Amino acid sequence: MKKSKRKNIGLIPGTPVYQGTKENGTLELEIFNYSIDSFSETKANNIKEISNLLNDDCTTWININGLSNIEAIKGLGAQFEFHPLLIEDIVNTLQRPKIDEYDNYALCVLKMLHFDKNNKLVIEHVSFVLGKNYMLTFQEAEGDVFNPIRERLRTSRGLVRKMGADYLLYALIDIIVDNYFIMTDDLSSKIETLEDDIFNASKKNDDLVFEIQNLKREILRIRKAVYPLREVVSSLNKMDGSLVKEKTNLYLSDLHDHVIQVSENVDIYREMIWGLMDIHQTTLSNKMNEIMKVLTIIATIFIPLTFIAGIYGMNFENIPELKYKYAYFMLWGFMIFIFVGMLYYFKRKKWL
Amino acid sequence: MKKSKRKNIGLIPGTPVYQGTKENGTLELEIFNYSIDSFSETKANNIKEISNLLNDDCTTWININGLSNIEAIKGLGAQFEFHPLLIEDIVNTLQRPKIDEYDNYALCVLKMLHFDKNNKLVIEHVSFVLGKNYMLTFQEAEGDVFNPIRERLRTSRGLVRKMGADYLLYALIDIIVDNYFIMTDDLSSKIETLEDDIFNASKKNDDLVFEIQNLKREILRIRKAVYPLREVVSSLNKMDGSLVKEKTNLYLSDLHDHVIQVSENVDIYREMIWGLMDIHQTTLSNKMNEIMKVLTIIATIFIPLTFIAGIYGMNFENIPELKYKYAYFMLWGFMIFIFVGMLYYFKRKKWL
Amino acid sequence: MKKSKRKNIGLIPGTPVYQGTKENGTLELEIFNYSIDSFSETKANNIKEISNLLNDDCTTWININGLSNIEAIKGLGAQFEFHPLLIEDIVNTLQRPKIDEYDNYALCVLKMLHFDKNNKLVIEHVSFVLGKNYMLTFQEAEGDVFNPIRERLRTSRGLVRKMGADYLLYALIDIIVDNYFIMTDDLSSKIETLEDDIFNASKKNDDLVFEIQNLKREILRIRKAVYPLREVVSSLNKMDGSLVKEKTNLYLSDLHDHVIQVSENVDIYREMIWGLMDIHQTTLSNKMNEIMKVLTIIATIFIPLTFIAGIYGMNFENIPELKYKYAYFMLWGFMIFIFVGMLYYFKRKKWL
Amino acid sequence: MKKSKRKNIGLIPGTPVYQGTKENGTLELEIFNYSIDSFSETKANNIKEISNLLNDDCTTWININGLSNIEAIKGLGAQFEFHPLLIEDIVNTLQRPKIDEYDNYALCVLKMLHFDKNNKLVIEHVSFVLGKNYMLTFQEAEGDVFNPIRERLRTSRGLVRKMGADYLLYALIDIIVDNYFIMTDDLSSKIETLEDDIFNASKKNDDLVFEIQNLKREILRIRKAVYPLREVVSSLNKMDGSLVKEKTNLYLSDLHDHVIQVSENVDIYREMIWGLMDIHQTTLSNKMNEIMKVLTIIATIFIPLTFIAGIYGMNFENIPELKYKYAYFMLWGFMIFIFVGMLYYFKRKKWL
Amino acid sequence: MKKSKRKNIGLIPGTPVYQGTKENGTLELEIFNYSIDSFSETKANNIKEISNLLNDDCTTWININGLSNIEAIKGLGAQFEFHPLLIEDIVNTLQRPKIDEYDNYALCVLKMLHFDKNNKLVIEHVSFVLGKNYMLTFQEAEGDVFNPIRERLRTSRGLVRKMGADYLLYALIDIIVDNYFIMTDDLSSKIETLEDDIFNASKKNDDLVFEIQNLKREILRIRKAVYPLREVVSSLNKMDGSLVKEKTNLYLSDLHDHVIQVSENVDIYREMIWGLMDIHQTTLSNKMNEIMKVLTIIATIFIPLTFIAGIYGMNFENIPELKYKYAYFMLWGFMIFIFVGMLYYFKRKKWL
Repeated sequence: MKKSKRKNIGLIPGTPVYQGTKENGTLELEIFNYSIDSFSETKANNIKEISNLLNDDCTTWININGLSNIEAIKGLGAQFEFHPLLIEDIVNTLQRPKIDEYDNYALCVLKMLHFDKNNKLVIEHVSFVLGKNYMLTFQEAEGDVFNPIRERLRTSRGLVRKMGADYLLYALIDIIVDNYFIMTDDLSSKIETLEDDIFNASKKNDDLVFEIQNLKREILRIRKAVYPLREVVSSLNKMDGSLVKEKTNLYLSDLHDHVIQVSENVDIYREMIWGLMDIHQTTLSNKMNEIMKVLTIIATIFIPLTFIAGIYGMNFENIPELKYKYAYFMLWGFMIFIFVGMLYYFKRKKWL
Repeated sequence: MKKSKRKNIGLIPGTPVYQGTKENGTLELEIFNYSIDSFSETKANNIKEISNLLNDDCTTWININGLSNIEAIKGLGAQFEFHPLLIEDIVNTLQRPKIDEYDNYALCVLKMLHFDKNNKLVIEHVSFVLGKNYMLTFQEAEGDVFNPIRERLRTSRGLVRKMGADYLLYALIDIIVDNYFIMTDDLSSKIETLEDDIFNASKKNDDLVFEIQNLKREILRIRKAVYPLREVVSSLNKMDGSLVKEKTNLYLSDLHDHVIQVSENVDIYREMIWGLMDIHQTTLSNKMNEIMKVLTIIATIFIPLTFIAGIYGMNFENIPELKYKYAYFMLWGFMIFIFVGMLYYFKRKKWL
Repeated sequence: MKKSKRKNIGLIPGTPVYQGTKENGTLELEIFNYSIDSFSETKANNIKEISNLLNDDCTTWININGLSNIEAIKGLGAQFEFHPLLIEDIVNTLQRPKIDEYDNYALCVLKMLHFDKNNKLVIEHVSFVLGKNYMLTFQEAEGDVFNPIRERLRTSRGLVRKMGADYLLYALIDIIVDNYFIMTDDLSSKIETLEDDIFNASKKNDDLVFEIQNLKREILRIRKAVYPLREVVSSLNKMDGSLVKEKTNLYLSDLHDHVIQVSENVDIYREMIWGLMDIHQTTLSNKMNEIMKVLTIIATIFIPLTFIAGIYGMNFENIPELKYKYAYFMLWGFMIFIFVGMLYYFKRKKWL
Repeated sequence: MKKSKRKNIGLIPGTPVYQGTKENGTLELEIFNYSIDSFSETKANNIKEISNLLNDDCTTWININGLSNIEAIKGLGAQFEFHPLLIEDIVNTLQRPKIDEYDNYALCVLKMLHFDKNNKLVIEHVSFVLGKNYMLTFQEAEGDVFNPIRERLRTSRGLVRKMGADYLLYALIDIIVDNYFIMTDDLSSKIETLEDDIFNASKKNDDLVFEIQNLKREILRIRKAVYPLREVVSSLNKMDGSLVKEKTNLYLSDLHDHVIQVSENVDIYREMIWGLMDIHQTTLSNKMNEIMKVLTIIATIFIPLTFIAGIYGMNFENIPELKYKYAYFMLWGFMIFIFVGMLYYFKRKKWL
Repeated sequence: MKKSKRKNIGLIPGTPVYQGTKENGTLELEIFNYSIDSFSETKANNIKEISNLLNDDCTTWININGLSNIEAIKGLGAQFEFHPLLIEDIVNTLQRPKIDEYDNYALCVLKMLHFDKNNKLVIEHVSFVLGKNYMLTFQEAEGDVFNPIRERLRTSRGLVRKMGADYLLYALIDIIVDNYFIMTDDLSSKIETLEDDIFNASKKNDDLVFEIQNLKREILRIRKAVYPLREVVSSLNKMDGSLVKEKTNLYLSDLHDHVIQVSENVDIYREMIWGLMDIHQTTLSNKMNEIMKVLTIIATIFIPLTFIAGIYGMNFENIPELKYKYAYFMLWGFMIFIFVGMLYYFKRKKWL
């Protein structure tokens, strides 16, 4: 039987399997406890007792980095009494964006798109578990786009300390979606660069086709991350009031709007990318025309002239012209006349 | 991390950031106060006290030019007690067209398409805030398509002074949509010009492809501005009666109809533009055929003749023909016969 | 600012502007007054008093030819107390097909497709205003497809005299849709003619591309006229009973069916037309292959032979073959052998 | 005015016009009277009195062959008190598949696809009128796919004698849909044959393009027959209980499933057919490459060699090489070296 | 009349006909009887009495291999009192995926995709009949993807022994869908291999086109198996509580999610495959350009040089240059100058 890259084929449903490549095995926790007046930030490697952390008076955000330590995540889930399917979705990095409502918590799975230090696009699996007074975020590795939110929590700027865990969820998704715009802008400039490369023939054909194919793959991957988000945010907005308060809905509508805007951009760039191959094909056809014009002009001028030269290279005993004194010079005149006439003809045909 | 053209990535939601390029920093206000019987028009650079302006007996239209002075706009919003997200949407020129209903006012974001002095298409971000007895319009810069409405207000022509702020909103959107038709007509003539250019080969290949690509981009930008408008106008029409009165609905239906007509036009021109590359490709193929015919005719006629001349240019001691007296002239006859035969053959093949 | 062909940009909503080209300025009215037992037919140039015409016991059909005399149409509208937007839609020949319900009358805008005396497709703007006991039709100019209905009214054939104005509206739209079928049949034969032209290369490339483009434009124009009709007829069918009686609904369902059939035909012909460019491109490629085969066969046979002739045209003092008595004839034999071998090779490659 | 193939343009709605080509004018009736216990089968050319035939205790199936005798069909319809529009739809062979519910009968129009004796696809118009205890089927001509049903009625196999007219309708449509599968299988094999023809170049270009176009037309015609059927069967299933009994619904669901399966097949074959032109184009391009390679190899080898031969054919008095004794043989050596080198170069470029 | 591969054309509805190719005629049954505490597994070739097997206290899974023995399956169905249409669907291997609810059991038809020993894709027809306390699975032949479930039943791992027949159905479908991912991963790698083959021209054109076509067919077949599954799982989830318990719904939602993910993958690979022909076409065009460049460079350099050599091969008596002592060497110099100039020209044109 063929092998798959997937590691969870045939396993018991609810069996968590980490599908990613960042297998450092360690788990890092950032714990933020905040209310309007209070704020504390701690780091840890595991959670001893959940009751010490959660508190009805304040909101708790626990950010977990590292999904490869399945056991630690299962332990964490057990403390929160999470459903096994939820744990499976958190560590299954191939999971598409979705939202699942459970009894008194909800799971929201997204893709975080950001550029790493080498300016390469990274699509990272991020899960959010929203409870009444807490929010858990699960990421594959360190490095995310949440720093502005962390800063706002610390400095109490904006509304984030004034509102609950639902607003925090909104703020985090909002910043993820904001980063989608950076990525679509990057696509836009890549398309323009490729168009220039095609026009200027500054790259080899195979490289161009290869890059167009890569861009196709990239936009298809991005589309896969972005499209389901519309439904996710829309479901979040329609969720009943116990988890998402009405006050937050206005912000979620605004977010939904942003998500649609990203989708529209993705659609537009998709159309542009799909057209690149046509441009390339047309440019190749045009170059072929240029090449053939050169060949045709040269051949059409010199082949008849060579024929004439051949005629007077024949060894017939009786070729009267050969004996005329100025025949050679008259022939030159005739040939130059044909040469100039041909050039004029090609000029008129706009080949030159 | 890569840089984006967007300036609001990671900011607190509701933080207004001007995304455009018209950063003159000044704010110009045109204030129209009107009822059936009264009319006043003033210009200002700021608003001191909003209560002086608004009046239950008349309708107030405040047109604000300049979005780069964030503070002034925030101050204005504060006087009207607008939600921070509304202010953000007003100055975010990348915002797609949408409608947001708030408690006792509604925000409507559109794109105004007009041609500047150099006949270049300008897509300008325009926001409308509709209140019970007032309407605010926010534009990036001076210069708009609203002059006919201003004139109607001054001269009390049409219904605009007889009806409320909702009708004014309708009238302004109607004139924006009217201008969309100018722009689609312009597209239509651009397509025809390009088709002519392709047929006549009056331009270089690269220029043609470049222009086709530009037209693609333009129609995609226009589509992005026009499509969401259908939903905007439709939502406006379904809004409950406190902001939009029933009397105005008939006009909004008519407007909706116009918007659909523009969308249909955009769709048609899109199909035509997407076909241009195919025409260009076919025209290139056809030219190639023409070029190759010329080459083939010349080569097919002269290569065999040159071969014959080559034969009698050989230096074999025993070539009997060379000694015949009229051999040279007979050969000429034979060659002319082949020449004419070839021409006849090509004529029959419709190559000439 | 750019000019548009549209003449109503920026005008007060409800300002009627005639957008067409048939500006003769005169208005011709045909008035039919009929019931089961009675029938009268008169012609006029204006309507003095509407109360003289309308009568609860009979149905009145007023057919108005000529939309350029705005004032006369406004006067007519005033007598019927029509809404200004209705008048605007009647004379706006760029208006897409639609249906508007007013309090006790309804406007239905259609496109009438017929062939004029020169067999050229004419898309004419026709509006129907349906009242309780009257029906008004507005056309741009004389010449329509309604004669069969006129005849049926005169001779009392069919149901038209037995039923009300709603059935008359149905009968008129039905005959317009019937004529759509003539036009799609015409398209079908145009496509077949073009396919033949492409295969036979009986026309020049540019003419073919030009005709394909024209057909594209034509089908897009027709689609614009036909598609919205589905919704129009469907809305007509769902209209409450005061204007359209239940008895007529069965006929409207049948009409809706016809409209869908026309749409399907338009879709099919659209697909065929969009494929024409591909056929043309393929035919061009195939011709290129034919041309290149001729060139290659000629060149491949004669270039090596010419080389051999060149060899023995060299002036080396010591070329032993030159002195052999039958060398020349042996060379001929060798050349004919190569010639025949080449022909055999091309035959096997199926190039001949 | 242009002529149309349609014969009912401008006629009174409800005027039956036969649009087909099978105008033999005769009408043949097969009458089946059956219940669980009884069965009778008669043939006739007309129906004298309908009351003699119909009987509450048994189900009557009347199969009518021949639609060109309008008067006879109208007479038949009059006995059943059918609506004129129903009669019009029965004989209008251009009518698309649909279902119309009348007061106590329903009309169902389908297309029967079968192969005639010459294996040519025939699309035949079939109408079913379903009453409480009777079913009428109208066909254009003799020859149909209903024989298995006739046999089941005669031998009382299956459920058809045990259930009512609605089950008979189901059984007949089911057998029509079964035959659609034969036809899609036929399409599948036609596509494979064409693909082989394209690869093997066993046919001329024009024939291939012509066949691809014909296949396109065929699948578009089939799609037109198959697609509306989904809605027809679905409506039949949703019909209230007086005409279609609940017991039959399970069978209709199964039928609906088959119809969807046919539609899916049609969609798949459509995609394959639309791709055939691309394959053909690619195959042409590839052949062109082959042709050009031959030309280029020959020209690239022999043109330089011919040049060298030309050099030593010059008549300069002072060409030292000409006098060297072995110059001629050395030149041959040089030429063979170039020849072999070139072959090696083309081999490395994978042109040979 | 044409023959079809289908064997059930025209048969009585509910007549079971095996459409597959695995006609070994034998029937193998695996019977699993389990509850939380008990488990038994037996093999058999027929079922004597169904009452011996089923038991309200435990769940029974009967897996039947072999669909060609129609009589045995009919006998089995009779014991369970299944509807004839259900039996027909079970053995009709051409049946598309669907779900049918009967009174107290439900039929679910799927396609199982797995790779056989030769790594060839096998699409196998699998049917599930879900009753209150039993589940029947019907397969065409031995060999399936259910072994992990069998193992879980035996070892009581996971929830499968703790929950009822509905969870077993979920678990089996889940494992089928898991295997879909293996198959889409396989597609992904096939596409990449083909792209490489196209770039490297490591295969002949016809083979490439053939493989692209095969991939198209494969993805269309897979799509046909995968798409309907979305509706099947969604219907299963909406089924009322008697057959599918509420506890299982959460798992079915998760399954639905997986099915959508597979569909998305299929869509993406479909887009990539449809683009392969374009890449191939572009690569062919590019190779043509390369070939033509070589030809043009050679011809453009040597044809004029050959002409010059021809000039001085003429036999005119009076050609002054021929007598100059160093004319020959000067001519060589001139020719080398032209040669180098040409090379420089092509270098600048980026042809070299």
